[in-house]
Amino acid sequence: MSDRVQSEADIIDRYLRPLAAGFPGAFSLTDDCAAISVPAGDELVLSVDAVAAGVHFFADDDPADIAWKALAVNVSDLAAKGATPLAYLMSLAFPDAPRHSWLEGFRRGLQDAQDQFGISLAGGDTDRRPGPLSITITAMGTTTAGRNLLRSDAHAGDVLFVSGTLGEGALGLKLRQAPALAGTWGLSQDRAASLVAAYLRPQPRLALGPALRRFASASMDISDGLAKDLQRLCRASSVGTAVAVGALPLSPAAASVVRADPTAWATILAGGDDYEILAAVPSTLAPDFRAQAAGAGVKVTEIGSLDDGADVLFAGPDGTRLPLIQTGWDHFGGP
Amino acid sequence: MSDRVQSEADIIDRYLRPLAAGFPGAFSLTDDCAAISVPAGDELVLSVDAVAAGVHFFADDDPADIAWKALAVNVSDLAAKGATPLAYLMSLAFPDAPRHSWLEGFRRGLQDAQDQFGISLAGGDTDRRPGPLSITITAMGTTTAGRNLLRSDAHAGDVLFVSGTLGEGALGLKLRQAPALAGTWGLSQDRAASLVAAYLRPQPRLALGPALRRFASASMDISDGLAKDLQRLCRASSVGTAVAVGALPLSPAAASVVRADPTAWATILAGGDDYEILAAVPSTLAPDFRAQAAGAGVKVTEIGSLDDGADVLFAGPDGTRLPLIQTGWDHFGGP
Repeated sequence: MSDRVQSEADIIDRYLRPLAAGFPGAFSLTDDCAAISVPAGDELVLSVDAVAAGVHFFADDDPADIAWKALAVNVSDLAAKGATPLAYLMSLAFPDAPRHSWLEGFRRGLQDAQDQFGISLAGGDTDRRPGPLSITITAMGTTTAGRNLLRSDAHAGDVLFVSGTLGEGALGLKLRQAPALAGTWGLSQDRAASLVAAYLRPQPRLALGPALRRFASASMDISDGLAKDLQRLCRASSVGTAVAVGALPLSPAAASVVRADPTAWATILAGGDDYEILAAVPSTLAPDFRAQAAGAGVKVTEIGSLDDGADVLFAGPDGTRLPLIQTGWDHFGGP
Repeated sequence: MSDRVQSEADIIDRYLRPLAAGFPGAFSLTDDCAAISVPAGDELVLSVDAVAAGVHFFADDDPADIAWKALAVNVSDLAAKGATPLAYLMSLAFPDAPRHSWLEGFRRGLQDAQDQFGISLAGGDTDRRPGPLSITITAMGTTTAGRNLLRSDAHAGDVLFVSGTLGEGALGLKLRQAPALAGTWGLSQDRAASLVAAYLRPQPRLALGPALRRFASASMDISDGLAKDLQRLCRASSVGTAVAVGALPLSPAAASVVRADPTAWATILAGGDDYEILAAVPSTLAPDFRAQAAGAGVKVTEIGSLDDGADVLFAGPDGTRLPLIQTGWDHFGGP
């Protein structure tokens, strides 16, 4: 017997249906549609993101990691809006009939991510077409009706916070592409592995949701890198800011990289693949935000404050303005 | 100036944002997430389908037709569930930066479809990757909470109905691939054109929604062809049926094709690309269903009834059982 699946039903019956077992509106994936009930007083928050082999992950990555990341990048958008994950739809495009062993790893990675994020598969679509393996997920969560945490509602005077630490995903990608960099950067094996793990298995900041809903005026995740996403938030809100990179939170691994190679700041600021949250919080509420985040086990760091200017500046460790030529990922090459 | 777009922002600002103008929860496509409110007493019905160049459409098709079809195939799933369209999310993957002229056609086709189906763009994702142009749409509609029209709730004794006429899309595709078939099939230019139009611009049967919600026990669209989708409905509901192909509704164009070439029945039954609705209706309600459908301007035809057997049979025009070797489209080659 071939190790490759023989039909679409094979994929659904053996690998996808178990992922939908916890969600009644999935109808056990026996129908063309899913049904979602939204509790009274809540509204649905939705995000769609596609990941493709060779663009967002490597084709030979562990399928469990591919699955985890495909779901995590979407759930990160929900987390940034303070939403509670509910269900997702997944559209899979395979260039060839996949192997059973690959699908089993993929299923396991999704199940792990579902369990951690509190979300279930509700439906989807599977087909075969030329091109890279691609996974398009529409993730849905609930939030209080009318409590939309947009990027456009920040105000001059708000304090800027980021969650966690920055740049590990982007540095991890560089290490995946060129493992010898670990030597150049003077990284121990453990630290190098921690950066690669951050790239492969991003952790959406769901625990920050209640603090965001209660205190933030605007928030977004910084999956395209702090430089670009901070610009987006400031432009959308018609505010400016100046951020001292010395104030940015780095992990011990990332800190030792920039000590060895200061040009790595560009990767940290603009490399993307950060699934931390950027939030603007009114200054009077900042202490409460910080306290509630700490209570939820999420480290948040004040990185600056918003002004009524139009510039978004980064000052280097020596206080001079950083020339940010590369300002983040754009698939079509523009700003 | 190049005719190709220079950035993702170019695509969003000029071509996608106008499509979201009517939907407040799209936040003018300035955010990473969309918000959807579901009226009390309703629930959300969701369907996701991807279409890709070279698989579901031709790369050189008119972009307005590509856009129409990408949205129509999803809205057809909502129509089959009796849902009222509300909003959709769209994930676009371009192999190269698209031309402005292409995007303008694509936008126009989506706007036409939105206007006709009563649906708005709420959000999405645009990227560039190798492989065919692909468009993944998650369409959402509302229906009465708990009124799920599944394929698994049909019963022995129910009358089977199909809407409209069958096989035009599949015959239209054959004509696109081999225009000389129009001669073989003895088709006038007008009739050949009507078949190609059915392939390019399917019409979801939204007007049938109220009659389905009121009377049907099960329903689905037959986008993979009547043969396969009838099997699916019967298997999911543990019922059987025998359908006489002589009773199937055909347009004048399709009827003249099968007169010229009886083997075209296989295309009509199993070619797919039919966006008609297959519904099972309790026999006592069948006259009311037919009357309400007629009142809504949708022709429905009784094509058989369900029994408690396990077989799904098609009898040819001469009454003998049709050998349906090809039972519909499967991307991975199986049943």
